[in-house]
Amino acid sequence: MKKKKKTTASTLVGKIAPEVLSFTAGKDALLDHVLIEPDCIGTAAHVTMLAEVSDVLSRVEVGKIIGELVSIMRRSRSGKFKIALRDQDVHLAVEKALSKALGATGRKVHTARSRNDQVALDLRLYAREEILCAITEATTLVDVLLAFARKNAAVPMVGRTHMQPAMPSSVGVWASAHAESLIDDLSLLRGAYTYCGKSPLGSAAGYGVPMPVDRERTARLLGFDAAHWNVLAAANSRGKTESVVLSAMEQVMLSLSRLAEDLVVYCAPEFGYFVLPPGYCTGSSIMPQKANPDVPELVRARASSVAACCVAVNGVVAGLPGGYSRDLQETKEPFLNGVSITRSCLGVLGSLVAGLHVDKEALRAGFTPGVFAADAALRLVAKGVPFRDAYRQVKADPPGTAGVSPDQVVASRRVPGGPCDPDIGAMRDASKEASRFARRERKRYHNSVSRLLGVRYPDLA
Amino acid sequence: MKKKKKTTASTLVGKIAPEVLSFTAGKDALLDHVLIEPDCIGTAAHVTMLAEVSDVLSRVEVGKIIGELVSIMRRSRSGKFKIALRDQDVHLAVEKALSKALGATGRKVHTARSRNDQVALDLRLYAREEILCAITEATTLVDVLLAFARKNAAVPMVGRTHMQPAMPSSVGVWASAHAESLIDDLSLLRGAYTYCGKSPLGSAAGYGVPMPVDRERTARLLGFDAAHWNVLAAANSRGKTESVVLSAMEQVMLSLSRLAEDLVVYCAPEFGYFVLPPGYCTGSSIMPQKANPDVPELVRARASSVAACCVAVNGVVAGLPGGYSRDLQETKEPFLNGVSITRSCLGVLGSLVAGLHVDKEALRAGFTPGVFAADAALRLVAKGVPFRDAYRQVKADPPGTAGVSPDQVVASRRVPGGPCDPDIGAMRDASKEASRFARRERKRYHNSVSRLLGVRYPDLA
Amino acid sequence: MKKKKKTTASTLVGKIAPEVLSFTAGKDALLDHVLIEPDCIGTAAHVTMLAEVSDVLSRVEVGKIIGELVSIMRRSRSGKFKIALRDQDVHLAVEKALSKALGATGRKVHTARSRNDQVALDLRLYAREEILCAITEATTLVDVLLAFARKNAAVPMVGRTHMQPAMPSSVGVWASAHAESLIDDLSLLRGAYTYCGKSPLGSAAGYGVPMPVDRERTARLLGFDAAHWNVLAAANSRGKTESVVLSAMEQVMLSLSRLAEDLVVYCAPEFGYFVLPPGYCTGSSIMPQKANPDVPELVRARASSVAACCVAVNGVVAGLPGGYSRDLQETKEPFLNGVSITRSCLGVLGSLVAGLHVDKEALRAGFTPGVFAADAALRLVAKGVPFRDAYRQVKADPPGTAGVSPDQVVASRRVPGGPCDPDIGAMRDASKEASRFARRERKRYHNSVSRLLGVRYPDLA
Amino acid sequence: MKKKKKTTASTLVGKIAPEVLSFTAGKDALLDHVLIEPDCIGTAAHVTMLAEVSDVLSRVEVGKIIGELVSIMRRSRSGKFKIALRDQDVHLAVEKALSKALGATGRKVHTARSRNDQVALDLRLYAREEILCAITEATTLVDVLLAFARKNAAVPMVGRTHMQPAMPSSVGVWASAHAESLIDDLSLLRGAYTYCGKSPLGSAAGYGVPMPVDRERTARLLGFDAAHWNVLAAANSRGKTESVVLSAMEQVMLSLSRLAEDLVVYCAPEFGYFVLPPGYCTGSSIMPQKANPDVPELVRARASSVAACCVAVNGVVAGLPGGYSRDLQETKEPFLNGVSITRSCLGVLGSLVAGLHVDKEALRAGFTPGVFAADAALRLVAKGVPFRDAYRQVKADPPGTAGVSPDQVVASRRVPGGPCDPDIGAMRDASKEASRFARRERKRYHNSVSRLLGVRYPDLA
Repeated sequence: MKKKKKTTASTLVGKIAPEVLSFTAGKDALLDHVLIEPDCIGTAAHVTMLAEVSDVLSRVEVGKIIGELVSIMRRSRSGKFKIALRDQDVHLAVEKALSKALGATGRKVHTARSRNDQVALDLRLYAREEILCAITEATTLVDVLLAFARKNAAVPMVGRTHMQPAMPSSVGVWASAHAESLIDDLSLLRGAYTYCGKSPLGSAAGYGVPMPVDRERTARLLGFDAAHWNVLAAANSRGKTESVVLSAMEQVMLSLSRLAEDLVVYCAPEFGYFVLPPGYCTGSSIMPQKANPDVPELVRARASSVAACCVAVNGVVAGLPGGYSRDLQETKEPFLNGVSITRSCLGVLGSLVAGLHVDKEALRAGFTPGVFAADAALRLVAKGVPFRDAYRQVKADPPGTAGVSPDQVVASRRVPGGPCDPDIGAMRDASKEASRFARRERKRYHNSVSRLLGVRYPDLA
Repeated sequence: MKKKKKTTASTLVGKIAPEVLSFTAGKDALLDHVLIEPDCIGTAAHVTMLAEVSDVLSRVEVGKIIGELVSIMRRSRSGKFKIALRDQDVHLAVEKALSKALGATGRKVHTARSRNDQVALDLRLYAREEILCAITEATTLVDVLLAFARKNAAVPMVGRTHMQPAMPSSVGVWASAHAESLIDDLSLLRGAYTYCGKSPLGSAAGYGVPMPVDRERTARLLGFDAAHWNVLAAANSRGKTESVVLSAMEQVMLSLSRLAEDLVVYCAPEFGYFVLPPGYCTGSSIMPQKANPDVPELVRARASSVAACCVAVNGVVAGLPGGYSRDLQETKEPFLNGVSITRSCLGVLGSLVAGLHVDKEALRAGFTPGVFAADAALRLVAKGVPFRDAYRQVKADPPGTAGVSPDQVVASRRVPGGPCDPDIGAMRDASKEASRFARRERKRYHNSVSRLLGVRYPDLA
Repeated sequence: MKKKKKTTASTLVGKIAPEVLSFTAGKDALLDHVLIEPDCIGTAAHVTMLAEVSDVLSRVEVGKIIGELVSIMRRSRSGKFKIALRDQDVHLAVEKALSKALGATGRKVHTARSRNDQVALDLRLYAREEILCAITEATTLVDVLLAFARKNAAVPMVGRTHMQPAMPSSVGVWASAHAESLIDDLSLLRGAYTYCGKSPLGSAAGYGVPMPVDRERTARLLGFDAAHWNVLAAANSRGKTESVVLSAMEQVMLSLSRLAEDLVVYCAPEFGYFVLPPGYCTGSSIMPQKANPDVPELVRARASSVAACCVAVNGVVAGLPGGYSRDLQETKEPFLNGVSITRSCLGVLGSLVAGLHVDKEALRAGFTPGVFAADAALRLVAKGVPFRDAYRQVKADPPGTAGVSPDQVVASRRVPGGPCDPDIGAMRDASKEASRFARRERKRYHNSVSRLLGVRYPDLA
Repeated sequence: MKKKKKTTASTLVGKIAPEVLSFTAGKDALLDHVLIEPDCIGTAAHVTMLAEVSDVLSRVEVGKIIGELVSIMRRSRSGKFKIALRDQDVHLAVEKALSKALGATGRKVHTARSRNDQVALDLRLYAREEILCAITEATTLVDVLLAFARKNAAVPMVGRTHMQPAMPSSVGVWASAHAESLIDDLSLLRGAYTYCGKSPLGSAAGYGVPMPVDRERTARLLGFDAAHWNVLAAANSRGKTESVVLSAMEQVMLSLSRLAEDLVVYCAPEFGYFVLPPGYCTGSSIMPQKANPDVPELVRARASSVAACCVAVNGVVAGLPGGYSRDLQETKEPFLNGVSITRSCLGVLGSLVAGLHVDKEALRAGFTPGVFAADAALRLVAKGVPFRDAYRQVKADPPGTAGVSPDQVVASRRVPGGPCDPDIGAMRDASKEASRFARRERKRYHNSVSRLLGVRYPDLA
């Protein structure tokens, strides 16, 4: 193999062979677009603090920098600020824009920081907003499921195990069970939000700087609970943070995938319990009759995609030596993807369930005699037969079901959490509380940013 | 292929071909041994409630059943209670033992329950205790790391990124960074504990029973926060619960794997920063000189094993139709394994770090001139040079390091979270708080069980 | 934390603290039992070669050693040879037994080898036999599926996409499709077998020894294709070999999981296409009427378990520094598990499909009018209408199906690979060829071992 | 939640709500660009066959269609053919373009096919070319490694296990070990190529069509070995094919990740064995002295990314019901990504190793006395001491190393596969053979396509 002369690209921080630049920074130049605003906001906090604790920047300079950062954010929104491959990433792109606009003042902004703490910060700010949005979307889906459950509380539905008919149940139980699963996931999303509550800003390359930077101050400016205690812990939190957020998203997707599977199965004509809303099925290119449940199928499959995002991140983090390694860059794409997939699945299922048609006759038709066998055994128990004997008796001699009505059986199950009283009120309260939490936290963050930038955020007006 | 006559095995619930029994129940008969106590405790709560809300069991019968359950637990501890393959699982084995000892009274205990809610309950009780133990073990390791950090707070250590020398740091920073990572994981373990806070008992096969079982009552008897609102949600929580617990364990393992990697690297003679305690290295069968860091290597590798346990469970849960399916049995082994691996890694690293020898001379020798380059640039910044210009100047003309002492440089970094002031006090408080939480919760659970069984738990005296 | 005095365990190669021995070698003492025979066979080859190329061992000594190895193998089969924890692993256990029985002669067997090449060899010998067995079992299942397909070639079955009725098909097409998928997997199993074709024996710790060991000779003695070219490559193949074998197993499991899913779905009464053979369903502890498809459910779930075995191994191997690291021990359990799960699933499905009952009426009842819509469009095409226009016409105005018989429609589809001519002959040939390959290779290996040990293998008579 | 009026998008095959279109088809519109050429080539084969076996298309029409397909391919290369979201995917986009250009003739091309067999075909054609390219790139890297090995055959290098010094070895052994690992992977790539050797074209939606389509004919036209025997097997091969290809790629990445890890470690100044070529290191934004091994770090991390691609695909395939489900779409992105990542890593490491600088002094300096301990024990063995006794003797009383020269020790290890005779010739032959195979197969495919399209392929001139 002949070595050929290569022109190397020159960036703010050194010279890199073009194919190496493309190999190392290729995807960042694309992926980092969603990080432009967090990067600008973080820089605003950093320079604000810097002016307070040192002479490196004057207040006037800080004003100019923040003005320019807001301008970059606006240009980014209108598609006029792009990250070029030769900039490597959002951090150098923003620093270059500042240097171009402000000269020496711009070349000062990287004082006491490193791209390592910048990207950790940007991802954390991004993660915090996304988690809050996901909580809001999950509570919307919960509310839709609970409304659906209440409306169909007494509609009989065969309860199944092993996909086989098992015992009498109702559409209300089915829908509110999926709601409760999501409510449980909300606590995990909030746990992830808490995990993201420490600011890594000021840890620089993971070892701090010989300057009196005030990490608690920038943490407060950005709405964090606190700064990391230890600078190296801040660096080591990169990767793990992505993993923790994705794990919570994965749990949401696991819940959604089971709802999706139920929808796929129950929309098959052999069941026919549900009919998807018009516009939510897609056709076949060869079979004119087709109306396929593509949306639930994709939700089901995307649970695997998000799970794979976790695997990707965890594989990178496991066994990595302490401090930043470039490997961590590979956590960015699965992190952004996994979060975005989860949010879109929450959104689309909300609309889908809201428009779901229930075929009551098909649901009633699903009640085969065996569905009532356990009830029969328990009636014998009520007469004093030990359960295991009653079980054997019913197994040997299944009772007839003449005159048994699914509707009556379901209506008679008045136990808490049962068909006609799925504990919807408590669930709705839980959902509301989570929804309020998300709204309040976003408001708090937006207020912090507005104060920091001196313009209203997020509208930048 | 000739079909041959097969004798089918007869269990409490039906006949199964022997090779099918072995295929379906083979591992349960082994794995379920750790579930014997939770199963007995759960049954005690169930029959207690049953006698309160119905005539199925009298108080005297309940007394006999609980007495027999305690006897099973004692026999299990002394190796005299075994689960046979033909019993399929712990639930049928315990029911059979009760029936054998108590006749008709024993045959009543399965009234209003199913193995589905039994195993969900058993795993949850097991998970709750294991999480609390893991929290305790993690806080022990945190304390060991913090003690190590304080003792070596000012010992210079090259801070690294990309495994390359980066900036001055200290052994104190290194050790307390790993402590902080674990402290952050503690919040995830507690989140998993909260997720496990709902009792599935009484949901039966996932659709309740036509009897007024009091699920809140059994939840309280067993020390849970509450029962699941919805019976099907209780059934659907199987699998997801294992996944949530394993995800938290996986985060702990990710933290430990990075500590382990650092130990492997820094014990190599080219670094020689640390020497493992005697008895913690293993030799080679061919090379007499060897003292290998097998323990940290295995911890590093076992992070992958626990990650794979998560993948196994999530793969089972994703896309499963609602209600119990036998697939869920496959979550048991990875769940038990993943939890047990994590706990043993926490334990062994605690002893290892406590005995770790620090070679200060080797650590000082690691300081190459480049380690001070960023400091040099920041000194120029202090003189008014914009950072990016200072950076370029130092890059073009690296300053000499004559007379620079790593010890002095480290000692002069007095910023919060820096070498000589890693914020150890706050971390120790966080660790103590978590430790107290775990102790309190275990105590509370043990008291509940003691009341329920009428003997002191866990000693059964 | 108080440091307490610890007694260290003394093994052939050094002293290890007891809790460290349990942490590092705990599972090996159990798992290694299946490696006792491969280890003895490998040692027999090694000493045979050693006596040929050096004076280290005489031919008489080799005879004694091999005699003792055969004795160990026999004792192991009758449960009388156990690996104790203090032996750490099979290699030291066998060496100790030889030393005990033969004195100085026994203490010579480890000349020019390391446990690193021993375990790599043992796993490879084990893998090769297991792959051949899996091939045989897969061809048996293929044959069962093909027999089932031929018997039911013309039985109408609705072809589905998206779980929705799509186009007319047959039970024959369904069954032989699953057979073909397995036939394709056979090539992957054979690829894995080829990958395992190089002997690592003689690479010692991965760097050879300063002695003229003849690696090609031991490779031939053990039936390998060749030795690794490079000694370090032999060492580095550990882990990757397990991964390659598991990947092939995983593909088999993916195929089986789709067959299993079809069985679960089509056994639900809403379809009722198939009825599992008696003894292959398991009951419920609460619902007397239940006959659940536990076997296919577990096969489906175990595809995730085997996939997780791959993830575990790959996670260990990825990014590992060159040469042996103790991490690699963690590949053993998932490797042994994954292989064993796959083989048992192949076996149980063979019996299950052989006894599967087909409900022809239920299958015919599944034909809804839409199933014939694509046919109707293609009839218009035959009359000259462009397909997309015909498609739109049929979609707008679905033709009636009066008088359409599923049996006739299926019978008329005489295209190759279609319902009445699934190309079963070619598939059967492919299956036979693979079956012959596996039988021939096992025979060849058994002959090599018989020559080496001087007794008939595998019966050791 | 209020239901709002939604305008639905109208495509060739039906109406879909806009948010559903974006949810279901959003990524396909982007990802499918790489499938435009395979799709056109497949369509050319299909219409050619169709005209031969039926009257649906005349030879003149076929000529026009192929002319238009070539035009689409050319427009696609010059960026003038785009897939719009409303087209859903490449298949409908091409059909629409043909219909627009050719009217009724265009509307006929979908006769006897489905998007299900189209996409399966497109991915297979794509996979086959990519695998061949990966083989070529892997052989290039092998050749570079072997050239490097020969050049540095006798340069001493400490052989390591557990990252600790183990035994004497050489740079030649190190480099050719990595080459051999890749050579072994080549057989897996070829196995994946064989697995992709069956054409799915003509299986339509997985159940064939009631027309005499000649699947063997289209298979030959496209350079396949054969068509799938069974139409449903063709459909079921979707997803598994992606998985099989990715598994082979993953094995390549595992090999590369270990090479990468070695490079990262040995470029650390504490070792300093290798220096990366200029332009292959990247700097730090804060530390002027930095030259980081980003390229090997990213290769190492990307092994996890490709592993995650496998996990994503396998998660989708596992347990999927027979026949096409929309879930399978989710296999496309990880498939395309995983293949592309692997190829770029092979490429960049080729250039990197070619420019790697070797620091012989640093390598020699790595030889600590312990490295020679096993040699010392074997010298005692040569004098008649049983190995285990010699081992203990050396352990107790390590010999001095005065006068031992690493160069002489390495030079004296003349065993096959050892330092001075890594069996490079045989490896080079294996590499050449694989390289020839890839070239020949690509040529064969290009010739088939050229004949089919009537223009030279791939240049379309």
